[in-house]
Amino acid sequence: MVKFELPHLEEARAEMRKEGLKAYLVVTGDPHDSEEPAAYFASERRYFCPFTGDNAFVLLTESGAYLWTDGRFFISAESELAGSSFKLMKMGTPGYPTLNEFLLENSLYPLGTDFNMISPAFLALLKRGGEVKDTSFAHLMESRPEFPSGKVYRFDDPKYNDLTREQKFAKVMAAVKGAGGKAHLITTLDDIAYLTNLRGNDIPYTPVFYSYLYLDDSGATLFIDKEKLDFEIEGVNVLPYEEIDNFLLARKDVPTLLDTNKANAHIVSLLANVVDGRMPSRLMKAVKGEKEIRNIKAIQEIDGVALLKFIDFLDAHKEEKLTEWDYAEALAKFRRQGQRFLEESFMTIAASGSNAAMMHYAPTAEVNSVVDPENTVELLLDSGGQYLGGTTDTTRTFLVGKASDEFKHDYTLTLKSLIALSSAIFIRGSTGRCIDMTSRQIMWKEGLDYKCGTGHGVGYLSVVHESPNGFRYRAAAGKDDDAENVPGMITTIEPGVYKQGKYGIRIENNLLTVPAFVTDDGEFYKFETITYAPIDVSPLDLSLLSDEEIAWLNDYHAEVYRRLSKHVSGHLLEVLKAKTAPIHR
Amino acid sequence: MVKFELPHLEEARAEMRKEGLKAYLVVTGDPHDSEEPAAYFASERRYFCPFTGDNAFVLLTESGAYLWTDGRFFISAESELAGSSFKLMKMGTPGYPTLNEFLLENSLYPLGTDFNMISPAFLALLKRGGEVKDTSFAHLMESRPEFPSGKVYRFDDPKYNDLTREQKFAKVMAAVKGAGGKAHLITTLDDIAYLTNLRGNDIPYTPVFYSYLYLDDSGATLFIDKEKLDFEIEGVNVLPYEEIDNFLLARKDVPTLLDTNKANAHIVSLLANVVDGRMPSRLMKAVKGEKEIRNIKAIQEIDGVALLKFIDFLDAHKEEKLTEWDYAEALAKFRRQGQRFLEESFMTIAASGSNAAMMHYAPTAEVNSVVDPENTVELLLDSGGQYLGGTTDTTRTFLVGKASDEFKHDYTLTLKSLIALSSAIFIRGSTGRCIDMTSRQIMWKEGLDYKCGTGHGVGYLSVVHESPNGFRYRAAAGKDDDAENVPGMITTIEPGVYKQGKYGIRIENNLLTVPAFVTDDGEFYKFETITYAPIDVSPLDLSLLSDEEIAWLNDYHAEVYRRLSKHVSGHLLEVLKAKTAPIHR
Repeated sequence: MVKFELPHLEEARAEMRKEGLKAYLVVTGDPHDSEEPAAYFASERRYFCPFTGDNAFVLLTESGAYLWTDGRFFISAESELAGSSFKLMKMGTPGYPTLNEFLLENSLYPLGTDFNMISPAFLALLKRGGEVKDTSFAHLMESRPEFPSGKVYRFDDPKYNDLTREQKFAKVMAAVKGAGGKAHLITTLDDIAYLTNLRGNDIPYTPVFYSYLYLDDSGATLFIDKEKLDFEIEGVNVLPYEEIDNFLLARKDVPTLLDTNKANAHIVSLLANVVDGRMPSRLMKAVKGEKEIRNIKAIQEIDGVALLKFIDFLDAHKEEKLTEWDYAEALAKFRRQGQRFLEESFMTIAASGSNAAMMHYAPTAEVNSVVDPENTVELLLDSGGQYLGGTTDTTRTFLVGKASDEFKHDYTLTLKSLIALSSAIFIRGSTGRCIDMTSRQIMWKEGLDYKCGTGHGVGYLSVVHESPNGFRYRAAAGKDDDAENVPGMITTIEPGVYKQGKYGIRIENNLLTVPAFVTDDGEFYKFETITYAPIDVSPLDLSLLSDEEIAWLNDYHAEVYRRLSKHVSGHLLEVLKAKTAPIHR
Repeated sequence: MVKFELPHLEEARAEMRKEGLKAYLVVTGDPHDSEEPAAYFASERRYFCPFTGDNAFVLLTESGAYLWTDGRFFISAESELAGSSFKLMKMGTPGYPTLNEFLLENSLYPLGTDFNMISPAFLALLKRGGEVKDTSFAHLMESRPEFPSGKVYRFDDPKYNDLTREQKFAKVMAAVKGAGGKAHLITTLDDIAYLTNLRGNDIPYTPVFYSYLYLDDSGATLFIDKEKLDFEIEGVNVLPYEEIDNFLLARKDVPTLLDTNKANAHIVSLLANVVDGRMPSRLMKAVKGEKEIRNIKAIQEIDGVALLKFIDFLDAHKEEKLTEWDYAEALAKFRRQGQRFLEESFMTIAASGSNAAMMHYAPTAEVNSVVDPENTVELLLDSGGQYLGGTTDTTRTFLVGKASDEFKHDYTLTLKSLIALSSAIFIRGSTGRCIDMTSRQIMWKEGLDYKCGTGHGVGYLSVVHESPNGFRYRAAAGKDDDAENVPGMITTIEPGVYKQGKYGIRIENNLLTVPAFVTDDGEFYKFETITYAPIDVSPLDLSLLSDEEIAWLNDYHAEVYRRLSKHVSGHLLEVLKAKTAPIHR
């Protein structure tokens, strides 16, 4: 964690005076709407402000410094800003103006900000109050992380893909023409990785590469730092990343399909004939093909074995008072033993007791807690892997100490929520908005609510949070996750109970949508659970489970046994047998 | 039913030539976005086309005549258009172009249509293909129903309203100013009735009056045919209905809040400074106040007594092979015996056997079926009343013949769906989209689906279908019914099973949203059922009901007894007792 140093603010203010600005705004993000930007892009905000969390605006004025962030980060922001001149502006909290209200009320125009980092809609909002200039103060940084230079690798073996890149390009171009476009600019990195059947190493946990992709009838052009490429990409013209501006300016009058919700304001401004619409690759990518599904199930088995080894490790070391970090490291070791494993798909959340009640907590080597069975009930483990063949995201909550009746009740409720949605049937046309309450109703009946979606889409060796499918009971700003849920989509289900200062419980599986049946009334879909890892039955209060729910759990564990027993033997097979044994009242 | 006469089409074509039009479009509706327009407005379409159903476009060209309508009306349209030169264009059906595609493909421009009858968005869509002229051929009609001239009556006794019209105006104007407006034009008749605390008689079943209402700081102006008013309205300036155009033109530069989704294209075009947004009265009206709720519960009891009398009547006459129309008439008679009753809130659906499977069937004196216990299982009765104190909408399905196992199963499923949603708990912020599946899931699990929303908002001596609350699992074109469901709203719940050619089952109650509890995780709401009418228990398959569901039904019937027993005695009290007796396995 970089500590705040006052001189940086004065540098910024000198620059503001030079450029004639009343205020300078730094956002969190990158030019490609990535969820987790590379350090190169994230560093500017951190250079000026000590806050380390996500979803923040930093606003610097001649005499003030302000940080807007949301409720997930109020506590950490307060501690990180302490001693600085920054004022915390709590989003969605009475008494705090929004960024826009603040700009208007204080007439902070002309305002400077980097148009590469914001959407056209956000820029339009900023412009309501006055002039906004396209500028960046990143050059003030004494040292900046290098522009990401990870190597790109092929993922175009036919065994990994249902469609070749040529087939994908053709399918996309047909959709582009249907929408009235003659060309298409793809700006989001996961879409580019999907369409090119390539993967990269530019962002930790996420196998994508910084680039733009342009498609038209004359072919495909990829804008990327050439050093990242050790091979030719058949059927793709390659140009330097920074060439995109001139390339687009030369074609600005071509009707170009572009998703202005995902592209940055700078790139959009280069084109004079934008056909605004969702990128066809979004939905194509979300609906996994047969080969992809086969690969995903295979790597889910490999991932399940790592979790089984972890369960065995936990049982053996419970009394040793290891730290959360020790457990996260142990899990990472077991994952690395798996075939086709590349890296983790996000920073492992190994959290015990009150840490687990904080949804965005993850231990580090420096900051973590001891998991002591004497005073801790549970260990919550939320983790996943990137494999040559898919991406996983699984949560299990393990009993490590003594469960109170309240804990047992809440743990059982979480499982009931999981089962309710996992065994849902829904008609063609249903979206995540409609499906969500099937899981949440069980919580709401008892006055509980987890403050997140019930689930999100999962990529295929790609981002672990993938659009446009998800389960969420109401729209959330910036979340494009309410698509119709259709066969081939993979969505997590992750209900939980979080009691501040006490404990956190979450159980998470990945659900593949599959056809259920067709009747006179329509076409119906259901879910197939494709996460194969034992669920801890020791904290269950069986009196709260119906016969159907117990049957579901026993069926699930039988499937886990069937899937994992192929891969293990000896002691581990015994562990698997024990952990997947049917339960009875 | 007026039979189609060819000369009308030729008159229209002559007019088209005179005006230089390639085509003329007649829509279904009125200038106020009313669900059921008065005959004056509905008559033009019927003058040119023999179709009598809802939701239709009639397009006339030099050599052709076309009717677009949706799937609910395909069968009746085919029979009504038989023998005419009209071609049925099936909405949402492969092989049939949309109206817009048809206009474009055949270059049917200039196109003429009445801008008073369409929304600005629809006009913009039409204009994509070429010039659209504002014209009406209604003057060609030899005789046209008179412009509605029903008398307006006061509903402003404090016992009926939580707010006076002055308070409502003030509240609305505060919201108008918050939205950046200085004036507000209210175009929808139910909003005008609500805001003025007046009611009218211009549309059958719906106690509203044709008018516009204009609010600004200088006061309120109502545009209405003065003959409708036998009294002065305190605090409201009254001008003739047709004065609205000149009045608005004189104020066209005043920032005026207007809902362009609800206002017609003509009226919107008069204003040069529209602040587009939802009318504040929409939500105010949907959230019923304390007095309103008290009145509604009182008239629901009166309505319940009418239904109880009907149940007794049905039991006594089952073997007499009465017609559906006879039953509808009997119910109307029982309603008229009730205090505070004014009229029915919609045309009673009394449908048996396969008729009940058609959602939009309603018997008439001329067209109806005999309810014969020998070959009919059920009588579905969907009806409601307008009372001085509220509006009701209730459906019960009664066993009149012999129930097959399939019927029992489907009937029980319908009740289970009703109970599931009626006993739901949901967090503040939940909308109908999220809540809907709680009811529908039970149907979907068995491959069944009712092809309508699970429920709609209900007015207060107003429209029986009220925005903006409802239960619907996905957005439906033109339906503004996905508001957050909050305490004070009244929404129907009406799941059902419809088997073509066999039977239709529906059970419908009105649900009042009330607070449930507040916990660390949020504020939760629940429903209170405020329809008080026995549910037929004779077709239930008790083996399909859980103990909780049986308890819910017994509790509900105990409440019905408590509510209705105050109003009846003697034989009817005995009937009530029998029909609300607890059931046991």
